Amino acid sequence: MRSTVENAQLALLLEVASTPKPGNVDRAREYPDLRFEHFLAGAVGAREGLAALADPDRPLGTAFERAVAGMSQQSGGNTQFGAVLLLAPLVRAVARGDSLPEGAGAVVEATTVDDAVAFYTAFDHVDVAVDEPPADAADLDVRLGSDAVPAIRDRGLTLADVLDVSAEGDGIAAEWVGEFARTVAAADAIESRDGPVTDRAASAYLDLLAAEVDTFVVTQHDRETAREVRDRAQAVTDGEEAVETFARDLVDRGINPGTTADLVAGGLFVALSRGLEV
Amino acid sequence: MRSTVENAQLALLLEVASTPKPGNVDRAREYPDLRFEHFLAGAVGAREGLAALADPDRPLGTAFERAVAGMSQQSGGNTQFGAVLLLAPLVRAVARGDSLPEGAGAVVEATTVDDAVAFYTAFDHVDVAVDEPPADAADLDVRLGSDAVPAIRDRGLTLADVLDVSAEGDGIAAEWVGEFARTVAAADAIESRDGPVTDRAASAYLDLLAAEVDTFVVTQHDRETAREVRDRAQAVTDGEEAVETFARDLVDRGINPGTTADLVAGGLFVALSRGLEV
Repeated sequence: MRSTVENAQLALLLEVASTPKPGNVDRAREYPDLRFEHFLAGAVGAREGLAALADPDRPLGTAFERAVAGMSQQSGGNTQFGAVLLLAPLVRAVARGDSLPEGAGAVVEATTVDDAVAFYTAFDHVDVAVDEPPADAADLDVRLGSDAVPAIRDRGLTLADVLDVSAEGDGIAAEWVGEFARTVAAADAIESRDGPVTDRAASAYLDLLAAEVDTFVVTQHDRETAREVRDRAQAVTDGEEAVETFARDLVDRGINPGTTADLVAGGLFVALSRGLEV
Repeated sequence: MRSTVENAQLALLLEVASTPKPGNVDRAREYPDLRFEHFLAGAVGAREGLAALADPDRPLGTAFERAVAGMSQQSGGNTQFGAVLLLAPLVRAVARGDSLPEGAGAVVEATTVDDAVAFYTAFDHVDVAVDEPPADAADLDVRLGSDAVPAIRDRGLTLADVLDVSAEGDGIAAEWVGEFARTVAAADAIESRDGPVTDRAASAYLDLLAAEVDTFVVTQHDRETAREVRDRAQAVTDGEEAVETFARDLVDRGINPGTTADLVAGGLFVALSRGLEV
């Protein structure tokens, strides 16, 4: 029986191994400066922090920050920030013996101002592509990293509060405040299929990509591009476009639906926790 | 800075990710029942045991057995038994701050009868393809697993003694009693090249395969097949055969030069310990 920590690390590895996952690094595709090996090293480095997330006596925020710091010990840059953020409450809930997704929702509810501070500090370790903050929240820009800590404390914001503000434009924050609905749907999709786990996860990825715009593509490009990606993912699942053509085009244009990949990592963890065999 | 344990786990992951590695599971090739995902799960499960190997206060043999037990928590069977056996003295030596390969040689010299007992017990966790033992050593057949323990204790054999007996027909045992010469050569080859680490490791694999017969191929098939594989690996490095043709043929015939892959895992660990960047 794998432990919760092992399932979390394995979820990160299975996610990046799943192919084809158009636009994202996978076993068959990589970018010159962001390679498969960087994701392997990211998952290796994240493990100590994942272990802290699985220890209910450790504050959630600092455990998350520890995972991000470890993940960042490789030269590819941000590999799994979003995936680790999504895993954080899921891992904590499973480690407590609570059921999903309710238990993870309770973890979110219980986050503190200190957790928000640690979350901001995690941005000191790695460059993460994010949206501009709303005009009335410039002092909460996550790109400030730990420089935003005084504003967080002044406003008395918990980590749940912080993510609630970003939920509209960030698919991972939306999971935190939306009962992990798409993460659980990904787990269901993975469990409902047969065959190698990495094939099942790749299919779940395409389904998720076809269902909603990827918020990371909106951030890095624009909403029109994200809609095009969504509609073409639907065409691929309908058999109207070849997945290889779609994948090649996204890599050529540097379009990287990273939020959807993060959701697959979360779905893999949920499925593994429920007993998915590898 | 990655820890020694992290370097060991990353070495297992980079090894299986390195492609093309003709005949072995890699990012691009797998067998229906022994897939890339099984190696990922094997590396995840091995970590606790690798941590025990990095703790000089833990007996080497039981730490190794722990790593094998964890590695075996997946449905593909034996994924990294040989690699973990090769890593064991290397990890212990680096964790002690000793230089390689001398420090690993000292670890080998210091093994005990209890270490040999734990080594045999490790075979209870997983089926490992091995040669018939010599006629005068039938009671030492590793396939007996822990049933061989009375004979080990009667004969007073240390783990170094046990591996010394197999060194002629087993490339990993040969490293244990031969100052890790090919492992260090693999590390040198990886360090001497440029580019993605997984490309460098794949080249090192071909060099090793061209230099000596793979003992796992001898065990699973015969010496003639192993020589053919060695000579064709040389032809590939000389540009006389396409690596893809060679790889496809080995997979079709179920020829799996697993010992050479294990040496690459060891070489990756040595290179990472010396500061190889990922």
